[in-house]
Order: sequence, then C-alpha cells, then structure tokens
Amino acid sequence: MKPLIVRLKINPYPIYIDNNGLKKTFSTIKNFLKENRLFVVTNPTLKRLYGKDIAKAARAVRLEWLVIPDGEEYKTLKTCTRLYSGLLKRSATRSSHLLALGGGVVGDITGFVAATFMRGVGYFQMPTTLLAQVDAGVGGKTGVDLSEGKNLVGAFHQPRAVFIHTRFLKTLPARELRSGMAEVIKYGIIWDASLFAYIQTQNKKILSLQIKPINTVIRRCCSIKAEIVRRDEREKGLRAILNFGHTLAHALEALTRYKKYRHGEAVALGMLFATKLSFALGFSAKNHAPILKKVLQLYKLPTTSPKFSRKAYLHILSRDKKRSQGNINFILLKKIGRIGVVPIDPRQLQHYL
Amino acid sequence: MKPLIVRLKINPYPIYIDNNGLKKTFSTIKNFLKENRLFVVTNPTLKRLYGKDIAKAARAVRLEWLVIPDGEEYKTLKTCTRLYSGLLKRSATRSSHLLALGGGVVGDITGFVAATFMRGVGYFQMPTTLLAQVDAGVGGKTGVDLSEGKNLVGAFHQPRAVFIHTRFLKTLPARELRSGMAEVIKYGIIWDASLFAYIQTQNKKILSLQIKPINTVIRRCCSIKAEIVRRDEREKGLRAILNFGHTLAHALEALTRYKKYRHGEAVALGMLFATKLSFALGFSAKNHAPILKKVLQLYKLPTTSPKFSRKAYLHILSRDKKRSQGNINFILLKKIGRIGVVPIDPRQLQHYL
Repeated sequence: MKPLIVRLKINPYPIYIDNNGLKKTFSTIKNFLKENRLFVVTNPTLKRLYGKDIAKAARAVRLEWLVIPDGEEYKTLKTCTRLYSGLLKRSATRSSHLLALGGGVVGDITGFVAATFMRGVGYFQMPTTLLAQVDAGVGGKTGVDLSEGKNLVGAFHQPRAVFIHTRFLKTLPARELRSGMAEVIKYGIIWDASLFAYIQTQNKKILSLQIKPINTVIRRCCSIKAEIVRRDEREKGLRAILNFGHTLAHALEALTRYKKYRHGEAVALGMLFATKLSFALGFSAKNHAPILKKVLQLYKLPTTSPKFSRKAYLHILSRDKKRSQGNINFILLKKIGRIGVVPIDPRQLQHYL
Repeated sequence: MKPLIVRLKINPYPIYIDNNGLKKTFSTIKNFLKENRLFVVTNPTLKRLYGKDIAKAARAVRLEWLVIPDGEEYKTLKTCTRLYSGLLKRSATRSSHLLALGGGVVGDITGFVAATFMRGVGYFQMPTTLLAQVDAGVGGKTGVDLSEGKNLVGAFHQPRAVFIHTRFLKTLPARELRSGMAEVIKYGIIWDASLFAYIQTQNKKILSLQIKPINTVIRRCCSIKAEIVRRDEREKGLRAILNFGHTLAHALEALTRYKKYRHGEAVALGMLFATKLSFALGFSAKNHAPILKKVLQLYKLPTTSPKFSRKAYLHILSRDKKRSQGNINFILLKKIGRIGVVPIDPRQLQHYL
C-alpha cells in the first residue's frame, strides 16, 4: 500500500504503515541519508527484543545505538545532554540522521534532540507502541518534561518519515495496548463517528492484534491526525482538538506523579470528564458519557477518577500550556465526531471537579 | 529613519536602529504583545546600569525581570532550566514574549528559551554590545554551549523585532567595543569593499562612538546580514560566509578555554589565518593579509596567534559544526568583498597551522 502523506507546505513527509518489512524500511531510510549511518535512539528493552532483527534488516546502513533508560521520568534535559554527548563522541554532524525506535518517550526526546542538536538534524520515527503509532509518532511535536510539568520544553520538528510496524505491538504489555486504544477512541470522538462505531464492534479482533482491524484503526487514526496537522501545523487553532480529554488527563497524571496511570488511561478519564462537562454546560444536547463509558470498558480502560481537592486540580490546571489570559481552552463535545474549543475560566470548573 | 526589514518568507521582522528612544521602542513592543507584560532576560550589570531607565521607558508594559549570571560559562542548559522555571513561576504562557537585553550570551540563550519554552514563544532582541548589534542579534540563530563545545545545541528562531540603541555602547568596556569591530571588519571583507575602506579612515570616530559613523557601520552590517539571512535562513549555503574566520576562531577559543580571547579577538586571528590560507592555496591572487593586519591593528585587535600543537588544533577542528563527510567547509577570500566556501580535509591544514 502507498504511504500516507502528511501534506505540510514545507517538508511534507510519508507515513508507511506495515506495507513493508523492516528490510524495505531501512532501504527507504538509506535513500534519505547523506552519510551511510544512522543513530538509533531506543531503550534497553527494545534493544534486547529487536536489536538483532533490526541490525539484520539494516545491514546496508551502519547503525549507531544510543540507549536511554526506559520511562517518562527520563524524558528530561539531562537525558538530552547524554544524547548530545553520545552524538558528539561518535562525530555526528549536521548531516546525520536519528531514528526514534520506541514509544512516546523515545519519540519525543529523539525529536527534541534532532530539533536542537547543531540547530537541527533530520530524524525518523519508528513508533513501537499503539499510542505512539496513532498519535505521538505523527505531527512533529517534540519535547521533554520539567520538574514543573510535562512537555513544557520542546519544538515543532517534523520527521523525514514515519515507519509503523504492527509487529512491535506483539511484545507490548496488554495494559499499554489498551492505553493506546484511548487515543484511538479519541479520534473517533473528535473526527469520525464511523471509526467510533468500528471500535465498538471490533474490540476483540483489535485487542488480539488481528492484522486487518489493527491496520484499519492505525491507518484511520494517522490519516485523521495527518489531516489535522496539515491544516494547523503549529497548533494555532484546529490542532487543539487533538487535546480532547487531555486537560484533565495532564492534571491527573501530575497529581498522581505519573505513577498511577498510563497516559491513555488518564486520557480515558479526561475524555469522560470532558464529555460530562460538555453536557453539563449545554454544549452537547445529549449526554454521550454513557456510550463513551461503555466503549472505555470494552477496552478495560478506567472510568472512575480518583478524588483530589479542587484546589489541587486548579493549581495544576492553571499551569496548562493551552491557557491564554487566565482561561483554559477546554475541548468540548458536540456529538460523536464533532467537537469545539471553548475558553473556560478554571474557577468555573470547580463545581464539576 | 525607517527600520531595516529582514525579508524572510515566513515571519519577516524589522530592525530599528537608534531612530527611536527607549520609550518609542517599548510602545512599538507593546503593539506586538498579547498580554500586557514582557519577560526581560538580562544580566546583573545591565539591570544595574539600565534597569531604571528601562522601567521608566516601558511604563505602559509590566516588566518581569529574569536575571542570569554574566558570562559565556553560563550559556548552558542549566541556565535555561532556571529561565523555564522563572517563566513558569510567573505563569508565563504560550502568548508571552521575552526580551533579550544584553550581548551575545543573553541573546543566544533568550532566543533558545523562546524557541523551546512550550514549543516556542515570541521574543525581541535589544543587543547591548557592538558584536551583538552587528551580528548576534540578527538572524535567528539561538543556542547554548555544551561542555564539548560552543553552540552545539540550538534552534533557528527569528525574533519579532530587533531594537538597536547605540547608547548601550557607552558603558561597554573598550575591549568589547574593539572586539565587536572584528565582526564589522568581517562584513567589509566578505561583502563590501567600501565598508572595509570606510572602517580604515573612520577608526577614531568609530571608536569614540560618534553618532554618524557608528550608526553608518551598524546599519550597513545589519543590512548585509539581513540580506544574507534572507537568502539563506537555515544556513544551507550562502550563510556560511558569515563564518569567515570562525573555524579557527572557535578552535582558538576552545583551546584557551574561552578565557584568553573575546570572541571578536579570536575572529580577528581566524580571519588573518583564513586570509593567509586563501593566498597559500592560490584561492586569492594577492596576499591580503598585510592590509587586514593593518586594519586589525587600527582597532587594537590581536594579530599573533598563540602556539598549540597541530594535534590539538586538528582535534578541535574535527568537531566543527560545519563539517560534512570529514571535510571542513573553509571560508576563503578571493579579494576584499568576495569570498567562497571550499571543503578542506582538516589534515590538509596541518602544514599551515
């Protein structure tokens, strides 16, 4: 199958979904390279699981491995500094290219290092989690966390190409797979009622990674994201809708110190909150929370938020990146497949938290 | 006088040179702001010298001061982390704007923080050294140093506007002023023989900061740089000529641990080396080194390089950012006002070092 193209005005790039084996992927990558080597950023688990296969498939390209510890707590400037040093030690230049082999953490940090090393080098994404395949690997948002919060430092830097191989999902823990489904459900809600319906009927096939349904879901999500990113590369407007459920999700993650929830689980709770809020504020005529709750349960995603004081929530919400002039731009649901962005004073939320 | 415009395809921006007082400057800035406050990044010396004047001139805008220590050794990711925290503590948002009030260090680091804080916010440059006024403040190159070398991490991020006030030069140490003249001389050599001639006859007036000559020099340099940046925003080709003298300068600075030379002094030595090399390699028909040496001496810039082992030089040169495929892109002189870029194997330089 042909790759999806993210049609940006400057630097459009292809997303290849499972239509090629790893070997084909590396011969495609080789065509982009100016020097015959590639810096692969990954974590120890993936190196152990796939290092040999990849080395074999990439035979024509010299691979330089840069292994970083696994976990969001390492998505820091400190890890970036280690990567910069690793690149310099191996005499990387402005013409060098990186490959992010991993989930969101590896992708975000590799993208940020690519955006900033010597003021920018090229990179590829090879996302290995469902979450990264449908979301984090596409769109050019890169970043690292600060002790004050997630993704507070970053850059927009589009990859040269994205390569999605569903084989990586086979070694993904079940909880991670379900967590990724939260973002898939999100795409259904914000853009595509038929995707939302498909997810409801195909849950068993999707969770057991049957090729056709899992591919259908990934391709559809990527093509939705590609379209949204094309229309709003720098998150000036439309792209905000991708953050449906994320305002509360980020707060929940911060309040539980990123330990209790996988990102998708927090997003599940955030979407449920936003859906209830949409109805409570009269933005949607019908309460879609019950149907969403049912779908989340199909994928064993959480549907009950823990209790925190309103003050704690408000403190975190007041730091949201999408804030402007004291208001949070809250993404609300009109109906399945249709949403909108509404500026809300965080204090207005008190009642619903 | 009208501002110079840096005519980039996306985000063109104006450079105002001395045609307005500080008060006018801040009312211009106010028009760019989405919120009525401005984060001023500066160092303790400038805050002490100009804090009151600026607060007075900016009365209509709420200023938030972020003071960072003075000196290249603080142009690090660690200082960035302090700035990010300072911004968050003061509830900065994506709509916030920064103002870099200072020399190259303040400008580079503020630009980098602006490029990366929440994936990019707007910023203004108000360069206070001659070097920054003719060079560092214009062009959108931002960055910080690593322990391995200078400016190894950075981004291209154009300011919203640049405001040049020569009044700041009055408190600049004489050595800094002369160091800035090295870059002025560079613009003459690479682009404008008449500027080069002007510098030779007006040295006393320039060094005593007489308004007309100092303005003429700054305006001419900015307009040359604006033209070069317009033609090559991302340093893919032409812009490399701005690095005339810089390959050796960076090596000299690194070898002397950034202690012995001001940047312009190292550039003076680097230009002299590149000029001699141009003649030795037959790139220029005439040896321009004697005339350049005379001009450098007019501005009390160094003309004798310290001795280091060839091995030490080569080690540093092999890390040059502008390297590709093992070669250094060396900028050579054809004649005054005309230069070219020639890839040279660092080992070829052994003989001349």
